[in-house]
This record gives sequence, structure tokens and C-alpha cells, in this order.
Amino acid sequence: VASDTRERLIRTTGRLLRTQGYTSTGLNQVMAEADAPKGSMYFHFPGGKAELAAAAIERFAGRIRGHLLERLATSGSVRDAVAGFFDSYVEHLEATQFAEGCAVATVALDGAAEHDVLADAAGGALRDWTGLLAQALEAEGRGEPEAHRMATLIIAAIEGTIVMARAERSTEPIVAARDALLAVLDPSG
Amino acid sequence: VASDTRERLIRTTGRLLRTQGYTSTGLNQVMAEADAPKGSMYFHFPGGKAELAAAAIERFAGRIRGHLLERLATSGSVRDAVAGFFDSYVEHLEATQFAEGCAVATVALDGAAEHDVLADAAGGALRDWTGLLAQALEAEGRGEPEAHRMATLIIAAIEGTIVMARAERSTEPIVAARDALLAVLDPSG
Repeated sequence: VASDTRERLIRTTGRLLRTQGYTSTGLNQVMAEADAPKGSMYFHFPGGKAELAAAAIERFAGRIRGHLLERLATSGSVRDAVAGFFDSYVEHLEATQFAEGCAVATVALDGAAEHDVLADAAGGALRDWTGLLAQALEAEGRGEPEAHRMATLIIAAIEGTIVMARAERSTEPIVAARDALLAVLDPSG
Repeated sequence: VASDTRERLIRTTGRLLRTQGYTSTGLNQVMAEADAPKGSMYFHFPGGKAELAAAAIERFAGRIRGHLLERLATSGSVRDAVAGFFDSYVEHLEATQFAEGCAVATVALDGAAEHDVLADAAGGALRDWTGLLAQALEAEGRGEPEAHRMATLIIAAIEGTIVMARAERSTEPIVAARDALLAVLDPSG
């Protein structure tokens, strides 16, 4: 059915954004890998590639939001939740042989952020994740400005260590930055 | 003269890598923007685009190394050097309207790291910068493992906040993460 095609287009685009970014991702590749019928692309996404990519980023952003919320809900502290989140990225990069990073970061860096609809989606995702962590840090008793600064550093460390892991083909930087953050987040530290 | 052409090819490629990454950067664009004579490209870089990009990344990496060393030499502490380095990125992103990020990060994320010569250049740059900061932190009395972890977090924060600044079209994340790091690096903190 039509909605299955839409789903496949979004999922395929999301995966391609994570591995190769926006510019490298051609619509022909998306159509082929999503096994999408001719014409379905502009039927579902009249705005073309930018609209499809924005939908894929929003889907990705929502999934990461879900992971973050689940970690925060099931961990005893923000510290433990952050540790688990970094560890899941270590696993994911190893499982994909460093191919799949963050869909938001690739789009932010390959010039695609010139498109307003993509900048809105990518910027909105980063602000949303930062806000979730800041709220959780506030709930642990930190003041609002400090919570926001620390949340920004945590999100930056995730985005930055994905860059490092992919360039160095090693998850060591993710582990090292995680441990530096955990020392800072340690209430007894 | 020939060496001027080589210089222009490297400089132009470096700028294009910072703004749009490897995949989007076509050799025709490089040749045109570098005002390079036909044939000069393969004369200077027989290995083609990957070899030229690797040379541009190494040039960029060396320039950042120089900036870092100068900051460390002229600042009273690693903390002050880090503050100055983050501030220079705030200025640079504002001056370029968020167009010019880190040449290493774009290459790491757009799939170019599949090329060994690019992964070597990008990974080598990140390891080099991390090592410089770690050495400086050790010189301030931190143990080797802690210095390495903190240096990794600082480099990750720079790479990550460039992603955030470009996506959000705001330097606010750079300032917030910088301030979180400075609180951690404060000897009296």
C-alpha cells in the first residue's frame, strides 16, 4: 500500500543520510534501495529530495529522542543514562563498521543546511535532545544555566566522537570522552 | 610557476572541504576556483581527487596544530588556551555565515573515509590534536589517562559544536559547551 512506500522511502533515506550525507544521496539510489514505484516519490514528497530528507531527519530525531527518554527513565541517574547512550553508539558503529553515524550531523556539515527545511529539521533535533538532557539535569538539582551548558557539552561530545570514530575507525574516542563526562557527572566526583 | 598552482589547488580544496565536504567537491569546481591550468591537477596529484583532498586535509591539520600550539604557548593555562580556541571558532563561523567548518569532520562523515588515504589524513589529524592537548594537560599535573580522556572530550566538543552551530545557525552551542568545559578545567573548580 501507499503508506508502506512512504515508510520505505523515509527509512532508506535515513540510512543513506547516516552513511553518506545529503549531497551524495541521489533520488535514484533512494528509489532503487527502497524498491519504490516510479512516481511514488513526488506523490509522497512533492517538495522533492529536501522534503524527503527533512522527513527522514525528523524520523531519526524522534527515534533518538525515544532512546534518550527511555535511558533517562530506566537509569538511576543522568550519568548512567549518558553512559548507556554512549555505549549504544559504540555498539552501533562497531556493528556497522563505522558506516552509520548521525543523520543530523552529516546534513549539517555537507552544506545541506543551506536548505531551510533541512536546517530546521537538523537544528530542531539538536535543540530537542539538548533540552531533554538539560531538563533531566535540572531534575537532579542543577541550576538551569549549568544544566543547559552541560547538556550541550554532552550532545556535542556525542556528535564529535562520532566524527572521531569514523575518521579514526576506532570507538576509542567515544569511550574516552564518555569517561571524561562521567567523571564530571559523578555526584561524588 | 608550478608550485603556485599546487598551492592554489590545495588551498581551494581545503576551503571546499570545509564548506561542502568531499563528495560534493568536484575536480572541475576545484580547477575553476583555483584558476589551475588544464592538466596541472594530475601533474601535481597523480592519485587524483583523493590524493589532493588528503594533501588539503594535512595542510588544514597542520594549520590547526599551529593555532593550538600558539594558544598553548601564549596562554597561562590549558583552560585559557581552550577558551581562546573556542572563541576563534565562534568568530570564524560568524565571519563565514556558518559556511566553513572543520575539513576533517566533513570528510569523516560524508563517506570519504572509505578511502584509506583520507581516513589516514583525517584520523591522523584528530589523533595529533588530541595528543597536543593531552600533553599540555599532563604538563599541568594531570595523570596520562585522565589527560587523554579530557583532551578527547575537548576535541570532540569542538567537532560536535561545529555540527550544532551549522545546523542551528547559531554559535550559542559553542559558547555553552566552552563554558561547561571551562568549569571542568578550572583548577579552583
